[in-house]
Amino acid sequence: MNGKSAKKNNKKNDKQADRFLARLDAVAADTEALLERLLAAKPEPGELSRPDRLLEAMRYASLGGGKRFRPFLVVESAALFKVPRQRALMAGAALECVHCYSLAHDDLPAMDNDALRRGRPTAHKKFDEATAILAGDGLLTFAFDILSRRETHPNAAVRAELVGALARAAGIGGMAGGQMLDLAAEGRFSGAGPLRLKENEVRMLQAMKTGALLRFGCQAGGTLAAAAKRERAALDRYGSAVGQAFQIADDLLDLEGDPALVGKSTGKDADAGKATMVSALGVAAAKARLRQLVGEAEQALAPFGAAAGILIEGARFVAERHA
Amino acid sequence: MNGKSAKKNNKKNDKQADRFLARLDAVAADTEALLERLLAAKPEPGELSRPDRLLEAMRYASLGGGKRFRPFLVVESAALFKVPRQRALMAGAALECVHCYSLAHDDLPAMDNDALRRGRPTAHKKFDEATAILAGDGLLTFAFDILSRRETHPNAAVRAELVGALARAAGIGGMAGGQMLDLAAEGRFSGAGPLRLKENEVRMLQAMKTGALLRFGCQAGGTLAAAAKRERAALDRYGSAVGQAFQIADDLLDLEGDPALVGKSTGKDADAGKATMVSALGVAAAKARLRQLVGEAEQALAPFGAAAGILIEGARFVAERHA
Repeated sequence: MNGKSAKKNNKKNDKQADRFLARLDAVAADTEALLERLLAAKPEPGELSRPDRLLEAMRYASLGGGKRFRPFLVVESAALFKVPRQRALMAGAALECVHCYSLAHDDLPAMDNDALRRGRPTAHKKFDEATAILAGDGLLTFAFDILSRRETHPNAAVRAELVGALARAAGIGGMAGGQMLDLAAEGRFSGAGPLRLKENEVRMLQAMKTGALLRFGCQAGGTLAAAAKRERAALDRYGSAVGQAFQIADDLLDLEGDPALVGKSTGKDADAGKATMVSALGVAAAKARLRQLVGEAEQALAPFGAAAGILIEGARFVAERHA
Repeated sequence: MNGKSAKKNNKKNDKQADRFLARLDAVAADTEALLERLLAAKPEPGELSRPDRLLEAMRYASLGGGKRFRPFLVVESAALFKVPRQRALMAGAALECVHCYSLAHDDLPAMDNDALRRGRPTAHKKFDEATAILAGDGLLTFAFDILSRRETHPNAAVRAELVGALARAAGIGGMAGGQMLDLAAEGRFSGAGPLRLKENEVRMLQAMKTGALLRFGCQAGGTLAAAAKRERAALDRYGSAVGQAFQIADDLLDLEGDPALVGKSTGKDADAGKATMVSALGVAAAKARLRQLVGEAEQALAPFGAAAGILIEGARFVAERHA
């Protein structure tokens, strides 16, 4: 490639990245507005009241921050099939509630004991431990409330499928199980220091702890569209690659990132002797694996053609993010 | 009534109580067996693994104890409409998972700080705080997994309705909100000692904290049967009366009960200066209110005739229980 075409190529990449960021921001703004409405003070039918302090804590844990990358995955994978945007936003909001609950609980003193999250005090620092536990419980429960509503999809079979898939992604066989494995890997139940996990064990841990929710986000688009099996499988491959890339990038950020940019403490993994893909593979190989995963994500979505451009940009963003 | 007919009446009452206890035990045994199967070691499709320690803690928190009164309400209210028992047991198991998650979280040091539950160490005493938090999260999530399955009901609209109703009963507008109000009533956020709640405030708190799940249990039968509006309203009135009776009986047990029978510490409410219906009304008036609620429960189910006998026995059991 000569200098001129390299410059042209960079320009094209910049333009794609700009387009991606604009679409990510649009989903973030719509998700924020939707959660703001869903978490209003007025009780819904069947609710007796929405106690102030709990509502405030649930709002604190879920509003006003976050890139909303998971809702982005739902909205843009649904857009491949021209699913009405509002339905995808509802499913995305449910997914974000699960993500935000997990942050509130993982930050607790008994768990990862973090004081800082998205550059703000964590929920138990801002409120107190009991309130943070209940806010997490409330958000997790609320996710299923959202998915059960007709506004998410007029077809109840789709709603029930989303409920089942999100529960599997978030529960013992997904995120909660992954957090358990992560705590065990720190060595806190063995009393013998951090476990030396093999690469495949780290991969399983991460596929559960962070991968499962990201995969759900990609699958949800296909579910909302009642897409064909082959299309769903393609989205699943994409989601799996993005999930792995996300975690490796996260581990690299913990090692090399600037806490001011990242919005939380860094260097914690190394301090804790934690097994990550970076510690298992080394920095150079981890970065190579990242590039490979972006390639896998592109390949998975090839059948969708240009329509999948935004999702592919999403995969690149995940791999190259600095925060 | 002369001596002979009083004796005859007592005998009839004993027989009814025996019949009720047999049916309660049958639901408990079936629920235990079902949860045992649902919480087996083998992952379900969509689950990557079921980490040992988390599964063990979820099983500890949900198996081998409990009267299973909530599943009883689901099964027996569904039986009014001849709903296949297995469907009701599934919905009952989901409800029991929510109940058991709430016990694991409420017992945490940051919440009610209880060491004893059903005569055994609480989850965080048996394991550790992080594991107890995750076990609660896992059980709450699992409840919605169960409700989303075809085994719960072949009609997805029914499944989605159950999901929405359970989420409302368990979330900010129900149980989690009630626990928040309860902590606030202890005065822990005001720094000025226990709040002096008015009777209607205590009633709201309790309707949320314990009433909502019990009501859901009664409503679920109508939902599983796609029952008529009037029938559902009757079950709801019954559930509301049972919920109130349950809590007043609980408060009386805390005041007058034997910890060895109750299976948890007693006298905590008075020590904490907690506002309960007993402290608001006095013991005698609370007992009179209990009898009145049993009457309301009976009246609500009158349209169902003799078929509702077991549920009415259930209301009496709740009001008169010693453990």
